Amino acid sequence: MIAKEFLDMLGQKSVIREIFAYGSERAKEIGYENVFDYSLGNPSVPAPKEFADKIIELLTNEDPMTIHGYSPSLGIPSVRQAVADSLNRRFQMNYTMEHIFMTSAAASAIAHALRCVTVPGDEVITFAPYFSEYVPYITKTGAKLKVVPADTESFQINFEAFDEIMNEKVMAIVINTPNNPSGSVYSEETLKKLAAYLEEKEQQYSHPIYIISDEPYREIVFNGDKAPYVAKYYKNTLTCYSFSKSVSLPGERIGYIAVGPECEGAEVLADMCGQISRGIGHNCPSSLIQLALPSILDKTSDLSVYETNKNILYKALTDMGFECVEPGGTFYMFPRALEPDAKAFCNKALKYDLLLVPGDGFECAGHFRMAYCIPTEKVERSLTAFEKLVKEYK
Amino acid sequence: MIAKEFLDMLGQKSVIREIFAYGSERAKEIGYENVFDYSLGNPSVPAPKEFADKIIELLTNEDPMTIHGYSPSLGIPSVRQAVADSLNRRFQMNYTMEHIFMTSAAASAIAHALRCVTVPGDEVITFAPYFSEYVPYITKTGAKLKVVPADTESFQINFEAFDEIMNEKVMAIVINTPNNPSGSVYSEETLKKLAAYLEEKEQQYSHPIYIISDEPYREIVFNGDKAPYVAKYYKNTLTCYSFSKSVSLPGERIGYIAVGPECEGAEVLADMCGQISRGIGHNCPSSLIQLALPSILDKTSDLSVYETNKNILYKALTDMGFECVEPGGTFYMFPRALEPDAKAFCNKALKYDLLLVPGDGFECAGHFRMAYCIPTEKVERSLTAFEKLVKEYK
Repeated sequence: MIAKEFLDMLGQKSVIREIFAYGSERAKEIGYENVFDYSLGNPSVPAPKEFADKIIELLTNEDPMTIHGYSPSLGIPSVRQAVADSLNRRFQMNYTMEHIFMTSAAASAIAHALRCVTVPGDEVITFAPYFSEYVPYITKTGAKLKVVPADTESFQINFEAFDEIMNEKVMAIVINTPNNPSGSVYSEETLKKLAAYLEEKEQQYSHPIYIISDEPYREIVFNGDKAPYVAKYYKNTLTCYSFSKSVSLPGERIGYIAVGPECEGAEVLADMCGQISRGIGHNCPSSLIQLALPSILDKTSDLSVYETNKNILYKALTDMGFECVEPGGTFYMFPRALEPDAKAFCNKALKYDLLLVPGDGFECAGHFRMAYCIPTEKVERSLTAFEKLVKEYK
Repeated sequence: MIAKEFLDMLGQKSVIREIFAYGSERAKEIGYENVFDYSLGNPSVPAPKEFADKIIELLTNEDPMTIHGYSPSLGIPSVRQAVADSLNRRFQMNYTMEHIFMTSAAASAIAHALRCVTVPGDEVITFAPYFSEYVPYITKTGAKLKVVPADTESFQINFEAFDEIMNEKVMAIVINTPNNPSGSVYSEETLKKLAAYLEEKEQQYSHPIYIISDEPYREIVFNGDKAPYVAKYYKNTLTCYSFSKSVSLPGERIGYIAVGPECEGAEVLADMCGQISRGIGHNCPSSLIQLALPSILDKTSDLSVYETNKNILYKALTDMGFECVEPGGTFYMFPRALEPDAKAFCNKALKYDLLLVPGDGFECAGHFRMAYCIPTEKVERSLTAFEKLVKEYK
């Protein structure tokens, strides 16, 4: 019979989608250019040109049987090797091809990583504020999700609260740095403290605790900084990457898991992902997309617009009196709403055609998310709308 | 901790993969042209040229933000509509866009379809001989797989044996016509009998019993015939399609579920697939590949080589004394081995560099599978090797 579990999910509408749908309707009335849509985390700059060039070259010069042929279930070997080489070059790691499993972007990477290191009944911890899709990603494996409340002063880790919920059933923690929705980048200090804490708990519980590190925003970091590479700080790390954000290929559904070379089970975890795929129906990303990937492994889109927008918004909003942790990367910021009920605040914002997302869905009430992956001129024009909104609270 | 369930799967080697690996090693010794590799069901003819042309056109003329942008989780609307239109045109159906869910080929289609209409503990029936991946596809949902023994006279359905294992816990049956490994096409008579039988059982048990119809070989049918379209015969049909075989795009991982328009739950099942994806980590096939798909929806590769090879092999092997049900389609045939132990038979075949797959893995002992998607000249040269093999049994 029709599976009630999934039927019931149809009733639960996504707040972000609803806001986006409202914006689309409103655009029909007043023109899209007059709707200040900060709702969706959709890259606003094109993919590096080399990607399309490479695809055209492959289609023009190579045998279609090879280009469109079956990929081995772990990914095309030359592509896995190229991914390992790129990570080693950029982060001084020691990955080999055997540590890399090609995935259909981050959702698939996380789905496989979780199933590698947890079984139903285990607990998995993540840290607020977090991407709301972690709930189905984690709970649908049969694992139990526990959430550490946000450290709203810095959006680093609230270690005290973390320690309160940590227990021996916890087999994995999911982190996301640079972070959606806060834009915060975990500092080297945070990662060192996290690693030391987890290593102590591994000793105490006599089992590994894996970090599943969701890193789609790894290359979108401001001030010329680099995000500390999580797997360098903690050996039991499964790095989950997506090419959706930094090279603007969200529709191509491509990413990977990089299994820490010193990880417990390093020699089997990628292979196990191939077995997990058989049960959940993935079988690799598109072969054509895989084969084109090496052309852009060390590249990004021109990401400068995100930093420009952040600078404009951070200055303007804090000048207007908003409290906000300055984002270190991504294309999000997560200011405190001007009233305790962020949903009410975001509703008021709609009056000025500002589409903002309440923080409740990220399990961090009282804040709102802005996805500023929109044209800079629109960001600038939106400031007047913010001023009007602020006036309501004075 | 590392999930033992998947770790243990690593030890279970695929017989087909082992034979293929043996062949690759042997090719190094005697040259690839001298290894008669009938082991893998990999298309041997290129995709229709229109596909590459369309991709190049998209990359050259369209906005990269659109081409590589997020697809809605059910698939790109224009592509879903094109799939529905093509099915309606070719099979006189009444699909709308709402019945179509785009998938990462058949594996993903089956993974979603099963989760739509079964819950852990339910039973799912399939019919021997069957594609061995049905075991993980079905059992990893938590459902219990039951197998109806083969009707080796015709490779249609053994209804007597089917009736013996049918019971009220059965929520879905998985069929595969044209069939891997037998090449048989279910006749109109078989499908009518199956539909009548299931309708009676639905009445008796007061719940729907869905046909999950795995149809990657639908267009590979011989003698100018057409495979009867399963969903025309039974309303509760979830048609699972893959573009891997008929248009030779196995690496692109693209297919769909078409939910029968009169199906119980027709209005929610595709939507439910979008929810199921969130838990198992799919999010659509590649946007570029989706957008290029309409260019080839009513086309196939030049499939004539498969029929040519079938004709040569069927005549030669039956002349040599093999018993074989003549394939009506696909690029497989499934003759009876010359000794009861098909594994022993296939091992003897290796002496003559014939790579054949024992039927045991398809739960039909005593037979062997030949995937004749190889060049015709190689098929012809292989006949001498078969003659030598037959001589051993005289």
